[in-house]
Amino acid sequence: MTEHKLQPLAHAIRFLSIDAIVRATEGHQGVPLGMAEIATALYAGHLRFNPDEPTWWDRDRIVLSNGHGSMLLYSLLYLTGYQHITLDQIKGFREFGSHCAGHPEYDPELGIEVTTGPLGQGIANAFGMAVAEAYLNARFGDGLVNHRTYAFVGDGCLQEGIGQEMISLAGHLRLSKLTLLWDDNQITDDGKTELSITENVAERFRVAGWNVIEVDGHDIDAVSQALNAVQTADRPSMIACRTIIGRGIPRVQGQRGGHSARLFDEDAKAARELLKWPHGEFDVPAEILSPWREFGRRNNSACSDWKQRVAALPAADKAEFERVMRGELPAGWQDVLQAFKRDALKPEHAQGGILISAAINKLLSDIIPERMVGCADLEAPTAHKGPLAAFTAANRGGAYVHCGVREHLMGAMANGMAAHGGVIPLSVTYLAFSDYERPAMRMAALMGLPVKYVFSHDSIGIGKNGPTHQPVEILASLRAMPNMLVMRPADATEAVECWEVAMQHQSGPVSMVFARQMLAPVREVFSEDNLSARGGYVLREAQCGQRQVTLLATGSEVVIAKEAREKLEAQGIATAVVSLPCWELFDAQDASYKETVLGSDVVRVGVEAAVRFGWDQYLGSRGGFIGMPGFGAPGPADVLYRHFNITSEAVVLEATRLLATTGIHSA
Amino acid sequence: MTEHKLQPLAHAIRFLSIDAIVRATEGHQGVPLGMAEIATALYAGHLRFNPDEPTWWDRDRIVLSNGHGSMLLYSLLYLTGYQHITLDQIKGFREFGSHCAGHPEYDPELGIEVTTGPLGQGIANAFGMAVAEAYLNARFGDGLVNHRTYAFVGDGCLQEGIGQEMISLAGHLRLSKLTLLWDDNQITDDGKTELSITENVAERFRVAGWNVIEVDGHDIDAVSQALNAVQTADRPSMIACRTIIGRGIPRVQGQRGGHSARLFDEDAKAARELLKWPHGEFDVPAEILSPWREFGRRNNSACSDWKQRVAALPAADKAEFERVMRGELPAGWQDVLQAFKRDALKPEHAQGGILISAAINKLLSDIIPERMVGCADLEAPTAHKGPLAAFTAANRGGAYVHCGVREHLMGAMANGMAAHGGVIPLSVTYLAFSDYERPAMRMAALMGLPVKYVFSHDSIGIGKNGPTHQPVEILASLRAMPNMLVMRPADATEAVECWEVAMQHQSGPVSMVFARQMLAPVREVFSEDNLSARGGYVLREAQCGQRQVTLLATGSEVVIAKEAREKLEAQGIATAVVSLPCWELFDAQDASYKETVLGSDVVRVGVEAAVRFGWDQYLGSRGGFIGMPGFGAPGPADVLYRHFNITSEAVVLEATRLLATTGIHSA
Repeated sequence: MTEHKLQPLAHAIRFLSIDAIVRATEGHQGVPLGMAEIATALYAGHLRFNPDEPTWWDRDRIVLSNGHGSMLLYSLLYLTGYQHITLDQIKGFREFGSHCAGHPEYDPELGIEVTTGPLGQGIANAFGMAVAEAYLNARFGDGLVNHRTYAFVGDGCLQEGIGQEMISLAGHLRLSKLTLLWDDNQITDDGKTELSITENVAERFRVAGWNVIEVDGHDIDAVSQALNAVQTADRPSMIACRTIIGRGIPRVQGQRGGHSARLFDEDAKAARELLKWPHGEFDVPAEILSPWREFGRRNNSACSDWKQRVAALPAADKAEFERVMRGELPAGWQDVLQAFKRDALKPEHAQGGILISAAINKLLSDIIPERMVGCADLEAPTAHKGPLAAFTAANRGGAYVHCGVREHLMGAMANGMAAHGGVIPLSVTYLAFSDYERPAMRMAALMGLPVKYVFSHDSIGIGKNGPTHQPVEILASLRAMPNMLVMRPADATEAVECWEVAMQHQSGPVSMVFARQMLAPVREVFSEDNLSARGGYVLREAQCGQRQVTLLATGSEVVIAKEAREKLEAQGIATAVVSLPCWELFDAQDASYKETVLGSDVVRVGVEAAVRFGWDQYLGSRGGFIGMPGFGAPGPADVLYRHFNITSEAVVLEATRLLATTGIHSA
Repeated sequence: MTEHKLQPLAHAIRFLSIDAIVRATEGHQGVPLGMAEIATALYAGHLRFNPDEPTWWDRDRIVLSNGHGSMLLYSLLYLTGYQHITLDQIKGFREFGSHCAGHPEYDPELGIEVTTGPLGQGIANAFGMAVAEAYLNARFGDGLVNHRTYAFVGDGCLQEGIGQEMISLAGHLRLSKLTLLWDDNQITDDGKTELSITENVAERFRVAGWNVIEVDGHDIDAVSQALNAVQTADRPSMIACRTIIGRGIPRVQGQRGGHSARLFDEDAKAARELLKWPHGEFDVPAEILSPWREFGRRNNSACSDWKQRVAALPAADKAEFERVMRGELPAGWQDVLQAFKRDALKPEHAQGGILISAAINKLLSDIIPERMVGCADLEAPTAHKGPLAAFTAANRGGAYVHCGVREHLMGAMANGMAAHGGVIPLSVTYLAFSDYERPAMRMAALMGLPVKYVFSHDSIGIGKNGPTHQPVEILASLRAMPNMLVMRPADATEAVECWEVAMQHQSGPVSMVFARQMLAPVREVFSEDNLSARGGYVLREAQCGQRQVTLLATGSEVVIAKEAREKLEAQGIATAVVSLPCWELFDAQDASYKETVLGSDVVRVGVEAAVRFGWDQYLGSRGGFIGMPGFGAPGPADVLYRHFNITSEAVVLEATRLLATTGIHSA
């Protein structure tokens, strides 16, 4: 098809977008109007997709990284025939309950591969998708996994640090099936891009080893030729498309207001005159809709050929491929964990918390090959590489990604992997650096993606590196995040229980937080049940009488609570120790279980080498807390615990003080 | 002095570092051993500093961005004669209480310009310092402010997104007095840099418009010549210094272990043999210490000349310059705020929360010219530019920095400005994007820097942009951070009160959080006192009897609590409304004030369009909460408030339910 024939199809994107934005009274017209030809070129002749089977496994992935321009995506989904994105849905753009939300919200069934909006996340997700594809391609071969990843991207995503991290690492890894389509419109929200950038963006990509093609973004043939050219590139490609923001609306095109200034009926009218578009509001006539729908069917045979190849696989291969694609864990995967757990009570299993996690990670590496581990230049101190080979430009079979010192990219890469499916991503760094990764973690929680994080060096227990590296507030800040499980195991038994839960948890991300320092066994009796799966449980019940005191602790402080209990019991104060490895799971238990664990008519004292923030929900109005008053300090761990008064003596003092000031029955 | 004579001086850095690290049993030798010659070249002939007056205002600023290599800095401070960094302090390296902490901790009196460790922060701080210097230079002239900013930097800082953001914007702004000294040792913690990067880093800087000079980092003369060359560059400079990591220790030099593998006595001995260093442990003989101390005195006359110039200023100019340098606010600065406050009760002052803040910001822009405002490409919707000109390559007198879509850099820039002094930085973006800035905010809190943040779009009240842009957990995550004031004003009166507190607050950062949507006056009576300065106060006392219910709310939900109070009072339930604009300030009040405000033997219900996390400390064991159960949704604000049941009706129901289930006295 020549450009001449496709131009009206591009205009259909424009007018659907204009009409929806005018109706919603807000929206971002810049992207859909500026990228209409680019998108048309991609969908008409290149993108491997199937609106009838939106989740076809071997489809190309497409990310709208400039997610504010969501009407571009909704227009494309409607025009190509995704059943859930109807004209009515588009008419409800930005209204409550519409599939056409202000920003695209992850739902592969709708045709939305990932939630975007916070800038830079989308292209980093696309990077993760391309890594997942390359890894699965190496494992399953071209016949089963052989697709590309495309991302629409604006200036904002490329200014963000995470975008720059992506450019650097994607070039390094030579992810040749990754293609960015840059909407080079020279405008951001503040106005001309020259307000904040002068560097040659194309050159910046070239320095990082990308294949860069510069085209007129309103020339459908030129974009299409560029898309042809990238198919054979041995490097990731960036197609720099010079465009006019808001193209088609005389009042705002090419200007700052083209980005998101409010549009009115007169703008829609003026655009219709300028572009000679005779059709009414939300009217896509058959002669335009029909070729769009044809594009939607363009890959039908490719899709059915792929299905035939899957069907023709030997039964075991087919089952394994389908298991991996569905994200199911292999039969019997828990056996190694159970075996580990049976051993975990032995004193010789006392070791650095992060090394306990590393041992479990290693066990799973052997039996769940679809796990991919990313780490931000802390391979040695976090030790989660284990037997994995590195994923490199030369070895796509490696499952360990050396992310470099790029935590933010690492987190967003994991989101892309999880959204892609077929791999189970794990990100590893120090807890203090989770803040760098946090914007991506928030997206994982929001999307409900089953991403796993392991964070090491979880408190002042790291010692001499000092307060920059000592998290005190980060447990609280992660616990505050909706849909994020935060686990802080106290010993090897809890560690393996938490890992088991984390591997099974599908509806959102899980942060597993480990001490750097030694964790000796605190669990005394082997339990077939996964006690950590309830989030909190009575580790040691009161012995010398009816419970007067409940000590609640997590992680490396459980042992302090246990010591304090011994001392209190020796004084005749009946004291229980509750371990709370995962607050979110505990909160989900029924009220009577929670009350049994927490104890009623008792004094409760929380113990955690972190700030109190959030703890009061468990401590009640007469509760006490032994923890950090603020940031940490440099020095050896034992000195710091004493300095900050996080000791069994302090716990005993606090419990007895509170007992004296309340009416709790004495033994 | 020729290289030949300086080489032993560089070795003095090496051996102090080796001896300290061996003694501490841990540390990072890579930087001090690899950068010894670089640092010697800088301090011997170029850096403008004065150990006798560490806080001399017109000194050059020097940042150790690769802060793990802290022994490099401590060695330099000792050798050049900073009085607090003694040999004894160095012998206490990494021990509790030593000035020589694991990572450098901000203390200008010691000679430590900024806390570093989390990678990328330091060079972004240096960027902020260079911006501050350029701005102050434009205002006060070369005679008073004319110094350079240097940063030592490793590969990690340059891989981090924040580092890349800095490279891009510093090049754009042509910060010619900013110089990076890159320790190009081709090794990171994981091993060779080629594990995670292949791009030509020098080229990446050149693309961004930097002056790049590549030298042998162990050639003191070559580094010195490069440092000469950068003095006249019209662009920021990066001196790429090829080095050997851990140089001098045969077992680890040039290898991964050079970074931070544990060193032993034998390593120290082998290094002494290799480098022919005859001196004992911690022994810096006079013939080496003496020239180092001479370097420390090198700028004495420049310093005294500068003092004379200051002394010779006309009295008013001198007073103004010294006021600005001390960070004192101008006399009478509060007058405009008081005037604003007197007007703020009027209904016509109902406007978008962020616009109220913008109006106050504008008032202060006129009378406190040392304020600098950075914003991450949200000038229009946050409206905090006001009358300020843009700070650009051509206009150093502008006080508004268009940061581009680079929130993380913006935050770290503010830290650098505050650490530099003489300017009062304010960072502006949406609350949802504060996560991007958070690692820098944590550093501000840790250093106790008086950085101000304004965050707009603070809840589901933003409406149609949807959950990506709707903070629900971010208030809690900021409140969890030690030494961070978090303020969420309810109306124009509270806004101006919070601004007043924020401007006066010197011991740490302040986050002021504003609604996008309309905030109508909730305060009914003008108060001379700053009620918000107490963090929380009784906005409306119970009227129909002894208080039975306390409704606690912040920001845009205070009006909902007030509506609920009217309804409860109409039912004969005596209800007070407490506004809690700043938890941290409230927590600092005495117990009796807090009890008076919160009420005893009452039912308390919190109301905030955010998650409950953290609220229980105020609600007590029989408290209730009306807020968000998790992430938000797209749709109009009013629809969302109803959908999530954040309404006065819901507050009334919760209060009456709780009253019925507790033994609270009835009216």
